[in-house]
Amino acid sequence: MPVPGRFTIHARDGKARRATLHTAHGEIQTPVFMPVGTQGSVKAVGPDDLLQAGSQIILGNTYHLYLRPGDELVARRGGLHRFMSWDKPILTDSGGFQVFSLSTIRKISEKGVEFRSYLDGSKHFFSPEKAISIQQNLGSDIMMVLDECVGYGADREYTARSLERTTRWARRCREVHTPGADGQLMFGIIQGGFHEDLREESLGQLLEIPFEGYAIGGLSVGESTEDMYRILNHIGPRMPEEKPRYLMGVGTPMDILEGIESGVDMFDCVLPTRNARNGTLFTSQGKVNIKRAEFREDDGPLDPNCQCYTCRNFSRAYLRHLYTAREILSYRLNSLHNIAFFLELARQAREAIEGGRFAELKAHYQGIYGTDGRNQRKGGAHHKPKRRFG
Amino acid sequence: MPVPGRFTIHARDGKARRATLHTAHGEIQTPVFMPVGTQGSVKAVGPDDLLQAGSQIILGNTYHLYLRPGDELVARRGGLHRFMSWDKPILTDSGGFQVFSLSTIRKISEKGVEFRSYLDGSKHFFSPEKAISIQQNLGSDIMMVLDECVGYGADREYTARSLERTTRWARRCREVHTPGADGQLMFGIIQGGFHEDLREESLGQLLEIPFEGYAIGGLSVGESTEDMYRILNHIGPRMPEEKPRYLMGVGTPMDILEGIESGVDMFDCVLPTRNARNGTLFTSQGKVNIKRAEFREDDGPLDPNCQCYTCRNFSRAYLRHLYTAREILSYRLNSLHNIAFFLELARQAREAIEGGRFAELKAHYQGIYGTDGRNQRKGGAHHKPKRRFG
Repeated sequence: MPVPGRFTIHARDGKARRATLHTAHGEIQTPVFMPVGTQGSVKAVGPDDLLQAGSQIILGNTYHLYLRPGDELVARRGGLHRFMSWDKPILTDSGGFQVFSLSTIRKISEKGVEFRSYLDGSKHFFSPEKAISIQQNLGSDIMMVLDECVGYGADREYTARSLERTTRWARRCREVHTPGADGQLMFGIIQGGFHEDLREESLGQLLEIPFEGYAIGGLSVGESTEDMYRILNHIGPRMPEEKPRYLMGVGTPMDILEGIESGVDMFDCVLPTRNARNGTLFTSQGKVNIKRAEFREDDGPLDPNCQCYTCRNFSRAYLRHLYTAREILSYRLNSLHNIAFFLELARQAREAIEGGRFAELKAHYQGIYGTDGRNQRKGGAHHKPKRRFG
Repeated sequence: MPVPGRFTIHARDGKARRATLHTAHGEIQTPVFMPVGTQGSVKAVGPDDLLQAGSQIILGNTYHLYLRPGDELVARRGGLHRFMSWDKPILTDSGGFQVFSLSTIRKISEKGVEFRSYLDGSKHFFSPEKAISIQQNLGSDIMMVLDECVGYGADREYTARSLERTTRWARRCREVHTPGADGQLMFGIIQGGFHEDLREESLGQLLEIPFEGYAIGGLSVGESTEDMYRILNHIGPRMPEEKPRYLMGVGTPMDILEGIESGVDMFDCVLPTRNARNGTLFTSQGKVNIKRAEFREDDGPLDPNCQCYTCRNFSRAYLRHLYTAREILSYRLNSLHNIAFFLELARQAREAIEGGRFAELKAHYQGIYGTDGRNQRKGGAHHKPKRRFG
């Protein structure tokens, strides 16, 4: 088996790349979409559903798993893979984002961040070292450094000071985990708000630390699509060519295609599962609000071009009924489909890059979803803090 | 294909029978347990889960489906089988039980029963003819006659008058549906409360009407286990030998074994799915309350003797975590297991009858679940009206 971290680019189309990333739990074909399993479960679906939909890798949330059931308990179970019965790769975030978005009281210092649990108000402390230790307990294939995700509207001075601390924290994360140990990879996170020069500065500082991959944090935090794409288009292509690039917590179908066009390889977002639970479904023909009365007697599948379990077996009329009757099965069938849609979008992107037709694919989806990803962003993206820090 | 309604007994062990019932959607091996799909979905599981767990037949609720999405809408979708993507047999109740248990205002007359919808308070009327017409729209394999389920505590005089009306209603149901038409079978329902002689009278009256099967209604409505078993043991063996016998809305594992011993072939109950959602799980070693702290670090399967998806893939520790974290997947995994347990219990009963070992099987489960089915009845059985009628 190739050594974890090996990253092979097979094809390029403009800045877009088609590659393979090797991890301790197998390889990932990129560009890839990663469904989010916040509490050790991708909401409303089982590992069987994820496999059937073609998931290559899922995400786990360090903040949530640390609080419940506890990372040490998960470690005693043999790690997160065994605990949740998922044999393929897992990426865990650092918990930083949730500390800043979910905790009502928090205190940041050079040492780390003190916060209160959103569950019971109990006091906790995350240092960079602690964030890595938790992720070692979880045994994820890709760990993320502890960063401060600066909210939209933070001033330039705070943003600049914060990104330097994020760099110092990133170095401390790397220092407690030898590259390659236990097959776990570690990615650094670029911050710098909506200032191109600060983003470049953050990237430059992180490049001095040997990470196996680099991520863009601090996007989809309330800014306009224009601002998001401006930063994405600026920093994406400047990230190391030979390492995987990950855009955190983004986003809509158009955001993902924009990211791929800027050379990003990996994406995660709660949008497909969260929207599914609200009855908003993504299809090859556009968004569908399954609650609408027009679907009462619609015998067609949700998406005639989709091969997921939901689309192969049930009509829009039945899905509307399940939603209206608040049946639990509604959550599963809707989530399963939306996940399948995002995975298929990434698969089509891989195929298009190989065939030199990526611009064509993006234009096709623009015709369906419009040019502004924000239109699809309703329902709240993953990386949107409820409170701003700083 | 054998004609629907054909009922072949293969083996006997005391009064217990091992048989095959043929329906328009295939054969059913009895004794059989039927999971309940109230609103066109067995709560929290999909048809794929039901098939994998070995379900032969499921139940649909006429009252709920009539109100939402409407039986005519279901008919236009090609019937309930196609609507919910379930190709195996379906039994529908008459809606009578829910009219009496869920509607706060209702008015019974010789003609039928007027009631208000539990959803929006709108006024509706079920006559015996209407109950059959709805079930014809749903296209179920087995239809039930409209009956009045007399609550526990009703006096003898009311019970006697009511059972005679139930007989007249049963005759009217049969009159609007020629035996064998559209492959749909129709079962009569024995009432008579907790009086042996009234039960016999009800049965005697129904025997004059050519039904393809007979059911015992009005049990598990709040009575003691002693009372339930007294009536069950009295009337079960007196029901026609050559026709399928169905005990409605019952019950716990011990209730089902008691029913089989009295010669009953078919059972349905919401107990496994409802209890699953409350974290109460049935296993070959007794009941398990998955919420309990003792399972925090329990790496064993929920039931080492169970072959269901849940038991093959997840630990008690993980199931406890999902329940505690209120993950939607918890409902599916728990429900799937409880259904599998009840289906396996019926399978073991079939095997034991064939081998002349039924008494042994029952004694085995008595050793685990005790002699009083009521101990397992907590959480509310299906056939328990919230209000009494009469």
